[in-house]
Amino acid sequence: MAKKDKIRRPRAETPKGFRDYFGAEVTERKAMLDKIAEVYHLYGFEALESAAVETVESLGKFLPDVDRPNAGVFAWQEAGEDDGDWMALRYDLTAPLARVYAQHRNDLPTPYRRYAMGPVWRNEKPGPGRFRQFYQCDADTVGTASVAADAEICAMLADTLEAVGIERGDYVIRVNNRKVLNGLLASMFALDGTSSDDLTMGILRTADKFDKVGVEGVKELLMKGRRDTSGAFIEGLYLTSLQADRVISFLLARSENSSKTLENLQHVVGDSKEGLEGVAELEQIADLLAAQGYGPDRIVIDPSVVRGLGYYTGPVYEAELTFEIKDEKGRPRQFGSVAGGGRYDDLVTRFTGQAVPATGVSIGVDRLLAALAAKEKEKGIERKPVGPVIVTVMDRDRMADYQSICATLRQAGIRAEVYLGNPKNFGNQLKYADKRGSPAAIIQGTDEAARGVVQVKDLILGAKLAQDATVEEWKGNPSQTEVKLADLVPFIQSLLA
Amino acid sequence: MAKKDKIRRPRAETPKGFRDYFGAEVTERKAMLDKIAEVYHLYGFEALESAAVETVESLGKFLPDVDRPNAGVFAWQEAGEDDGDWMALRYDLTAPLARVYAQHRNDLPTPYRRYAMGPVWRNEKPGPGRFRQFYQCDADTVGTASVAADAEICAMLADTLEAVGIERGDYVIRVNNRKVLNGLLASMFALDGTSSDDLTMGILRTADKFDKVGVEGVKELLMKGRRDTSGAFIEGLYLTSLQADRVISFLLARSENSSKTLENLQHVVGDSKEGLEGVAELEQIADLLAAQGYGPDRIVIDPSVVRGLGYYTGPVYEAELTFEIKDEKGRPRQFGSVAGGGRYDDLVTRFTGQAVPATGVSIGVDRLLAALAAKEKEKGIERKPVGPVIVTVMDRDRMADYQSICATLRQAGIRAEVYLGNPKNFGNQLKYADKRGSPAAIIQGTDEAARGVVQVKDLILGAKLAQDATVEEWKGNPSQTEVKLADLVPFIQSLLA
Repeated sequence: MAKKDKIRRPRAETPKGFRDYFGAEVTERKAMLDKIAEVYHLYGFEALESAAVETVESLGKFLPDVDRPNAGVFAWQEAGEDDGDWMALRYDLTAPLARVYAQHRNDLPTPYRRYAMGPVWRNEKPGPGRFRQFYQCDADTVGTASVAADAEICAMLADTLEAVGIERGDYVIRVNNRKVLNGLLASMFALDGTSSDDLTMGILRTADKFDKVGVEGVKELLMKGRRDTSGAFIEGLYLTSLQADRVISFLLARSENSSKTLENLQHVVGDSKEGLEGVAELEQIADLLAAQGYGPDRIVIDPSVVRGLGYYTGPVYEAELTFEIKDEKGRPRQFGSVAGGGRYDDLVTRFTGQAVPATGVSIGVDRLLAALAAKEKEKGIERKPVGPVIVTVMDRDRMADYQSICATLRQAGIRAEVYLGNPKNFGNQLKYADKRGSPAAIIQGTDEAARGVVQVKDLILGAKLAQDATVEEWKGNPSQTEVKLADLVPFIQSLLA
Repeated sequence: MAKKDKIRRPRAETPKGFRDYFGAEVTERKAMLDKIAEVYHLYGFEALESAAVETVESLGKFLPDVDRPNAGVFAWQEAGEDDGDWMALRYDLTAPLARVYAQHRNDLPTPYRRYAMGPVWRNEKPGPGRFRQFYQCDADTVGTASVAADAEICAMLADTLEAVGIERGDYVIRVNNRKVLNGLLASMFALDGTSSDDLTMGILRTADKFDKVGVEGVKELLMKGRRDTSGAFIEGLYLTSLQADRVISFLLARSENSSKTLENLQHVVGDSKEGLEGVAELEQIADLLAAQGYGPDRIVIDPSVVRGLGYYTGPVYEAELTFEIKDEKGRPRQFGSVAGGGRYDDLVTRFTGQAVPATGVSIGVDRLLAALAAKEKEKGIERKPVGPVIVTVMDRDRMADYQSICATLRQAGIRAEVYLGNPKNFGNQLKYADKRGSPAAIIQGTDEAARGVVQVKDLILGAKLAQDATVEEWKGNPSQTEVKLADLVPFIQSLLA
């Protein structure tokens, strides 16, 4: 081996946990973001785009996502004469909103309704389908304590899901309230809300295991603990049986209609002032939504929603898709949550010392795209992006003619390109057209040029014939048509229609 | 002062050199990117979105931008057991394309036409109007040596500028070729292209001073050097007078038509093979463009374009806006360059060892937006984004009614919101509507509710009246109308029309 060959070349690799998005992966997400932005805009929300980079100081550390407990940030120190600031990539769109609102609050309207969409970054161990850069798509209303703002965001979320193609009946938005849980705990332990954080988190963690261990299992975990199927013992929270029952009746308070659910909750919170306030807020939300025509088929009070309760301070809401899809192994499963949010009243406190009430929602765009794709797959719909019409090159010296044919198509709004690879092997040109998903290839040799015509190869029909046609059908060569140059645009238009 | 007050609060500040974009700043840029993407797509280009983060190793260091010589990257080292990789934010969209193409070349079609749009980051000293995060918007064709690809990108660039609102006649795309410069140097010094890099860069730097120092000044700088107005002496490149004249005749080779320009260039390059090849390429480009109807009113061969010649290896192109705008001090000036690109045939060499020909363009979206805004300002057009219709709150207990009025408007596609601040002070509600740029405010007290009507305040007319109206006109209160609830949607629609 010559030494020259040993040059160390850089690896052409995406960094671990990052990925590239090609063609339709980009445009389909963009189309979804556009539809979401349209609904947000209709509701009076204004776009905000902050930079990807924030100072670590202003970013703070309050990752809301209990699913990603090890989440960290990508951070670096500014070079500089005076020991530069630490900078970091934003890990969500809420922390930048807090900074923006604190910085610009005198110029912004109050309430401030803003939406933001874009990538966020998490410095955590990547896993299958879990990336370190992903999209978030948020809408928040800052500066109002009115639960009308929460109700509005729930309504907007329902409209948004329908706008992107989730049919009514295929989703439900479930609403809960942290204050009700606080009320329950206060009435049980005579604690104020703030000092019961550990217990709250313990109860929330336990409640999240409902699906796995059932009511009895949850009760054991709330009391003395439980031995799981592997034989390991999980310590309990040491509630009394009565207390555990009250927690369970909170989680199971959802009834056939809102007023019955609210009645159940009223029993749960006893005489706790905060609890009763929480129940009243849920009632207002239900009433406001009913007045706008959003019934329990779309938005429902459901205390079993515990996700987010550890983070938010008032109403919480979560959008769940209710249809079943098949997992990799063909087993049916519910698609689950695609969006969530709630009220957090300490958004800018760390900057200004003042509590500013805020409420907002975040849509998991990539999950929503996956859900729509899964649904289409179940229905047998195959999405195949349509590529450009390819003008092939029979004669390298007549490139100007081919470009001119192509320009005519483009001027009529038809996506088209001239084959710009090596034209020597005509088969390669057709292979390229196939790879691009081209609907048609245009062919013009010297003879056709002299007669002012082109051959149009219908590649969609061609592919179908290749699968199904008999020898007789092939002989007629029905997928290739001679077309006068002057008729090319309408011919291609009807072929694409 | 109580000690409690001394809590060190984080500063709510964008990091130095970064900024926030609000409302129309976001949506206008988005609208422009959408229009650009539409043209790129029409030309057969496919979207590509790579992550913001690349390994430093794969990113390499080949910043093309001679305007930002100190440009660096934001980089950090991955935490990890085994001394992690260095990662960095991408500084342009070309370096990621190189990595993507090298990584996925077996799956991608050849040629690969891709477009990409998104932020890039430069770790450099920020200045007025110069940010460390800004948008790029690129289209490249990878894997073809045909100058038809270069011609196509020039045509696409012309179409793109017109699509975003630059009128024909207000821009020109100027095309040059590095090979012609190489040919000139080779014929002057019997050098091969690669070994004359220093001299090439010196000549390019000098040529860039044409505007300031004129032909005589450039000639001095190419020869023995020149004393500038401040008295400082700038050393020259020590060409002979004959040599300097040849460089100047290269720079001034542009003539009234392409064939005359090409003839001039043929003299300039003498018998250099590479030079003649460069001239032939320019001729082909001119012919291909003429065949598609792009004449010298839009795209012109112009050897005085030296920007990019130091970076690119073949044809280079630059789009310049030709209209005058006024600078901060009211002085007329040309707007200048908004896009540029060219052929670079060593895109993936550092990864694979193989030379892959490529050509591409980058549009400076923010500059283009600034140009359009400046042009509108000169014309006296004032852009004022229209805010949502505001449903005011007269009676806090009837929030459900207001939300329902609002929902009716939204369902008709009218952007609307209920005022969600403290409704006590009605003046604040109207101030809010003013701040949002609302076209109308809707008012419904108990009396109106009983009669099934609302008052609609036309805020646009109101603002006009506030400026111009006489007392008599005011008395009629023409900007406020009572409307039946059932007629509200058509009434607002006609008001917005």
